[in-house]
Amino acid sequence: MNNFEITTPTTLIFGKDQLERIPEQIAKHTEEKKIIVLYGGGSVERSGFLDKLKTALSAFEVHLFGGIEANPEFSTLMKAVEYIREHQIGFMLAVGGGSVIDGTKFISGAVGYENDPWEVLLREPGKVFTTAVPFGCILTIPATGSECNSGAVISRSELKEKRTMGGPLFFPKFALLDPTFVATLPKRQLANGIIDAFTHTTEQYLTFTGENLLQERFAEGILSTLIEIGPKVLENPADYEMAAQLMYCANQALNGMLRCGVTTDWATHMIGHELTALHGIDHAQTLAIIGPRLYEMKFDNKKEKLAQYGKRVWGLTGDETSIAKSAIEKTEAFFQSLGVATRISQYDENCQNTPSIIKNRFIERNWVAMGERQDLTPDEVEQIVKNAI
Amino acid sequence: MNNFEITTPTTLIFGKDQLERIPEQIAKHTEEKKIIVLYGGGSVERSGFLDKLKTALSAFEVHLFGGIEANPEFSTLMKAVEYIREHQIGFMLAVGGGSVIDGTKFISGAVGYENDPWEVLLREPGKVFTTAVPFGCILTIPATGSECNSGAVISRSELKEKRTMGGPLFFPKFALLDPTFVATLPKRQLANGIIDAFTHTTEQYLTFTGENLLQERFAEGILSTLIEIGPKVLENPADYEMAAQLMYCANQALNGMLRCGVTTDWATHMIGHELTALHGIDHAQTLAIIGPRLYEMKFDNKKEKLAQYGKRVWGLTGDETSIAKSAIEKTEAFFQSLGVATRISQYDENCQNTPSIIKNRFIERNWVAMGERQDLTPDEVEQIVKNAI
Repeated sequence: MNNFEITTPTTLIFGKDQLERIPEQIAKHTEEKKIIVLYGGGSVERSGFLDKLKTALSAFEVHLFGGIEANPEFSTLMKAVEYIREHQIGFMLAVGGGSVIDGTKFISGAVGYENDPWEVLLREPGKVFTTAVPFGCILTIPATGSECNSGAVISRSELKEKRTMGGPLFFPKFALLDPTFVATLPKRQLANGIIDAFTHTTEQYLTFTGENLLQERFAEGILSTLIEIGPKVLENPADYEMAAQLMYCANQALNGMLRCGVTTDWATHMIGHELTALHGIDHAQTLAIIGPRLYEMKFDNKKEKLAQYGKRVWGLTGDETSIAKSAIEKTEAFFQSLGVATRISQYDENCQNTPSIIKNRFIERNWVAMGERQDLTPDEVEQIVKNAI
Repeated sequence: MNNFEITTPTTLIFGKDQLERIPEQIAKHTEEKKIIVLYGGGSVERSGFLDKLKTALSAFEVHLFGGIEANPEFSTLMKAVEYIREHQIGFMLAVGGGSVIDGTKFISGAVGYENDPWEVLLREPGKVFTTAVPFGCILTIPATGSECNSGAVISRSELKEKRTMGGPLFFPKFALLDPTFVATLPKRQLANGIIDAFTHTTEQYLTFTGENLLQERFAEGILSTLIEIGPKVLENPADYEMAAQLMYCANQALNGMLRCGVTTDWATHMIGHELTALHGIDHAQTLAIIGPRLYEMKFDNKKEKLAQYGKRVWGLTGDETSIAKSAIEKTEAFFQSLGVATRISQYDENCQNTPSIIKNRFIERNWVAMGERQDLTPDEVEQIVKNAI
């Protein structure tokens, strides 16, 4: 087992009818009475949730900042930063999915940063956030696990860039996970959430065998559960028990536990981010597009673990190579069964140059070795994207 | 899924050669330079570990307090409380297994408590610890999971009492888990650790089916892993990979995760504590004695989950009732295969009155409903203990 360190300080409050817990949670972390609610599109307004929330927060002076988009935009977030500085707000409450929560993490660091925060996202030497406005979150879309981790992905569409940030300062103080939100989501977001959680797991699992036997079983447990409940959630998002499973799986897939003691991959995400930046394809859709093609390209590396996955999760039998191949097919078929297309051309026909563009973007950024063996080459990235067209 | 709340703030540092991380971890939580190392028997002295630790802590004024026994004694712990008060020590470092860490949690609360701390353990109305001396721990015996949770069990042998305490104040600030300690442990402690982790899992798992599908798979993962690695650890405790698995399993079995969203039992522990108090039988041995007999007694309640356990963990086939029965037999045989006897009389022949004594102790303490359905009766407790003789 590899050495590891983990801290997961976020208080997780899971279940329905827990809104009245929020004021006590905020009070644990600030004496400020001025708070700001950050959210995305107008669905929390239209559904009446924002009004319920304001009632629950009646002891506070509540400011509102809506309009944080999917793949949260640097320019939008900087408006929130200015607003929070101007009004000297001491606590933030993110209400939304991964994009709103990720955006809130960026805002948290940027408020106290004196120069242009973009330089932090560019990882310029010595440029880091050293202060954080404390924040909690109410999760409305199960998918990214952002509610209990300290990472974030921020977009700057005019540069076609997606950049990551994070660190111990940026754990939410608390996360309220209420499965009743699942009933309000469109099928596309539900399918995306299932695939996002699934691929967060495979990124940390489809690498080496035997590094952490228990972690392997945890990962297989998440995958098996998502396969079991995914179709049921899509069929009836109002089924509270199934919705709760999806929310819990997505949370556990990226709360840090799965990386403990093992070597991770994350190349599917790295390549997928570029597809979102170039074509505006939903994050989870890019994972469904790239994942299976990456497993094929790095088949020799991953064969042993793919076979274990095929046996334990899909119940496949046979020789190792055929199980491993079938496991990739089963995975892609599962994504498709959720209504998610697994080819780039199904989203944007104008994609013939995409493989070489992505290859060159990686090279321009000073190529960093990717994959669990750090042996993925720029040419392989190009070929993976070609095979995914 | 039941509503739940969980916070696990302890920083977990896992692996070998991590001792130099301790000073930085202490410095995160205190500016005090006076610290005390709390430990158990002399094995950490004899092995030379204490000297290595003192070298690593050379920036601090290090006080020592040894002699915290298995089933930590109130009177011993109160001596440490007096010492810490007298020397105004600001940070504690527990070095040991669950008993030393549990004892440290009690000391943490008792130092700032003005009256007799025993009244807190008696749960007298309004009597609670409201301050805590911060502490970290170095785990030397994988078993209880105490290193990353906030609970403790304290003994007072002159009253033949074992009492529980805990709460958010009593999480270790950090826990260093170094699997190389496993190689130094006698087989009895290793077997105890395996059974302790196993039963912590079954207490939270062998209840209802379907409350939290993912949690069930996590629990099954821990049980499967312990069955796989347990015999290997006993055979060769110096096998680092197997030792690491045991340490990780024991940690995950009681870090709070398994209780999320489900109804738990814990009656095996409640009855087992009495066997330790009456006969001095090791904690884990009492679990091996009581667990199988309790599953038999509450077979109708637990049949469905026992069958799921039998199928998924032991690979059993057949009708539900026979799988459930075989699963109990397999469990007891597993404990025995680790060299642990599962009958009271194998530890102490003078046990004929034990069933009625234990029954009466529960009644005297104002009977609190036990078990996942809170339907365990005093007569059933007596019968379970009788059947375990």
